Amino acid sequence: MRESPYPMIPVETAITIILQHVRPLSPVTVGFMEALGLVLAEDVYASEAMPPFAASAVDGYAVIAADTSPMRRIIGAQPAGSMGMLAVTPGNAVHVMTGAPIPAGADAVVMVEHASEENGYVRLHVQPAVGDNIRPAGQDIAVGQLVLSRGTLLGAAEIGLLATVGRTRVNVHPRPRVAVLPTGDELVDPKDQPKPGQIRDANRYSLLSAVREAGGQPLDWGRVPDRAEAVQEALESAVRQADAVLTSGGVSMGELDLVKPYLAKRGTVHFGRVRARPGKPVTFATVEGVPVFAMPGFPVSALVSFEVYVRPALLKMAGHTYVHRPRQRVILEHTIRHEPDRTEFQRAIVTRRADGHYTARTTGYQGSGRLLSMVGANALLVLPAEQETFPAGSELEAWLIAPVREEETPANS
Amino acid sequence: MRESPYPMIPVETAITIILQHVRPLSPVTVGFMEALGLVLAEDVYASEAMPPFAASAVDGYAVIAADTSPMRRIIGAQPAGSMGMLAVTPGNAVHVMTGAPIPAGADAVVMVEHASEENGYVRLHVQPAVGDNIRPAGQDIAVGQLVLSRGTLLGAAEIGLLATVGRTRVNVHPRPRVAVLPTGDELVDPKDQPKPGQIRDANRYSLLSAVREAGGQPLDWGRVPDRAEAVQEALESAVRQADAVLTSGGVSMGELDLVKPYLAKRGTVHFGRVRARPGKPVTFATVEGVPVFAMPGFPVSALVSFEVYVRPALLKMAGHTYVHRPRQRVILEHTIRHEPDRTEFQRAIVTRRADGHYTARTTGYQGSGRLLSMVGANALLVLPAEQETFPAGSELEAWLIAPVREEETPANS
Repeated sequence: MRESPYPMIPVETAITIILQHVRPLSPVTVGFMEALGLVLAEDVYASEAMPPFAASAVDGYAVIAADTSPMRRIIGAQPAGSMGMLAVTPGNAVHVMTGAPIPAGADAVVMVEHASEENGYVRLHVQPAVGDNIRPAGQDIAVGQLVLSRGTLLGAAEIGLLATVGRTRVNVHPRPRVAVLPTGDELVDPKDQPKPGQIRDANRYSLLSAVREAGGQPLDWGRVPDRAEAVQEALESAVRQADAVLTSGGVSMGELDLVKPYLAKRGTVHFGRVRARPGKPVTFATVEGVPVFAMPGFPVSALVSFEVYVRPALLKMAGHTYVHRPRQRVILEHTIRHEPDRTEFQRAIVTRRADGHYTARTTGYQGSGRLLSMVGANALLVLPAEQETFPAGSELEAWLIAPVREEETPANS
Repeated sequence: MRESPYPMIPVETAITIILQHVRPLSPVTVGFMEALGLVLAEDVYASEAMPPFAASAVDGYAVIAADTSPMRRIIGAQPAGSMGMLAVTPGNAVHVMTGAPIPAGADAVVMVEHASEENGYVRLHVQPAVGDNIRPAGQDIAVGQLVLSRGTLLGAAEIGLLATVGRTRVNVHPRPRVAVLPTGDELVDPKDQPKPGQIRDANRYSLLSAVREAGGQPLDWGRVPDRAEAVQEALESAVRQADAVLTSGGVSMGELDLVKPYLAKRGTVHFGRVRARPGKPVTFATVEGVPVFAMPGFPVSALVSFEVYVRPALLKMAGHTYVHRPRQRVILEHTIRHEPDRTEFQRAIVTRRADGHYTARTTGYQGSGRLLSMVGANALLVLPAEQETFPAGSELEAWLIAPVREEETPANS
């Protein structure tokens, strides 16, 4: 009886070990429009107030609030974009545009909707109060204020804020460059007709896509033949040039386990088996500090392993402080049985019911090769190792990998 | 008293009108690796079974289950990738790799972990049953099976599935090309120092980023001066070349309302005011079938309007069938007052508590210019127009625009 030299460790232990061995990538400076979707590696302060001057919040008439004149003479217009020389005195008003500086002397703006012009005069239909429709200087941002903190994910609003404070170059954590190396002599290109005994390669393309979806920069290292020398050459070049390396295939217990022995020789294998289904032979190593994830060749095993082990690592490398998928308690819609020896990740569809409860059903036959079981799945349903049968109505944990569906109700359909 | 010629319509009516006037873009054929993140515009069928042959699910020994020989002679090895000529007869076994075709005669595979080799013979430590560790032909996919339906969002698993069935080109809805045209003479480039009366342009960059985040292809049309002729020229060229057009600024009630009159002349204005804060002057028109969204110039007004009105439209154009953000009932952490004349979208942080409840707090001062109020926000909190005060503990609806935070507990920290 042959035994793997690697102890089988729990899933959570495996994730913890991985996160202990990966670090946020060293910051780089990029143009702010290239920073969308990246994590800020510095604190950003405002060097000026925003607005920099008291500005009108509306199109209207700048007046003195305490002025009781029934009609006010319009002494000019103040457009946005320049500082005017006009000053408002009692009995007078200045026409102002949205965003225009408030003319000297004025302390309120009356909206055009609440006023009417007659022969160069304006009649106000409301009694203004001091400050009405004026955005005071510094109302939005004070001079020297911290506007974005290190660790912030830069989305559309944050990019706009960088523009506002004039930060056109910023320090960010770069996208991890991730080399993808599928192995397997039975694999052919998707465009080719498989010969007897062959199948088309799916992992190369699904893993490159998964890296992109996780915010990484995928590097297509090509398919590697099932020969020790070829695998080692590919791994050596990948470790030299990438921030992380993914392999698929060649990690099970047969003679063609080409990956683990090499990783053990060249670096440190932190674990070589996980008490999980799919993905038992998942292996995590570091070679000269570069994390290497060796995953099983079955398409579902590879993608589920990516989700459970690789994605959190890539997010940490990209500077994210929270790297986990949301976890949700769900109620099973049907009974599930599984072999109670390992934690199982079944692909499932989680729905939020109108009453606020979440329910889950699996996506059919859960074979490790059946990519169809991942199509339409928005969750990994976690079946604990200890229990064999989970009756309909059981409560389980689900890891949400895509938006939850909402039960069709008149409100959302 | 000047009045807008456009009636003020409710938010939900505005969204309904928009979705009635936009259509999924005509499908295009692209390489399958360019299809990541796009929506499939055709049904995809499998022309072959998967696996195409009965295959071993493990590295092990192909045997006859009913054979009772204590030791079996190893008559050869069957690698993955080719069809062998070996046939298993009673008393014999063939060494098989994961993914290898099952040799003729064999009806079970025993894992290497459950067997030991001695002098060219193998001793099994388990009693195999027919079918053990064999993936029958067609187990994952049957010939002719529908594997991906029209309307499916193509993620990593779907890309892998396209590879599996050999579909290297697919029909998808393209990314909507969205022209972004900010207006405003007070705006300068982020790299420039604003002169008195000027501010840096934020909308151009935040809207281009928002388009990208929503899966569109942003087209930078540049800033447009506050002159009727310039605005019309820019709009004309954008309508000719883009699938949708976004403007910001120039839609309020002043003389510089340059956008609406042109849209009314050149196309159809479907609405010109919405009972919402921010975003009251949001205008939606179609010009020669191209949707045009004219948004206010305040940075928060523009981004919130994008989220509420533009994003659902872009998703529909990209072929998505469900275009709304998830809506969640939340409990207010603090009291909020607002002017009870319009539906207000306050930027908020929604947290899921350990007990499963969701709570919300706003991001501070909610001024229309204060982009900081969107930083860190993961929700738009909907304050109904009818009510003025919402005491702490009130239940409100939130539209989730980013992942919900989870309360720190030992389980997720």
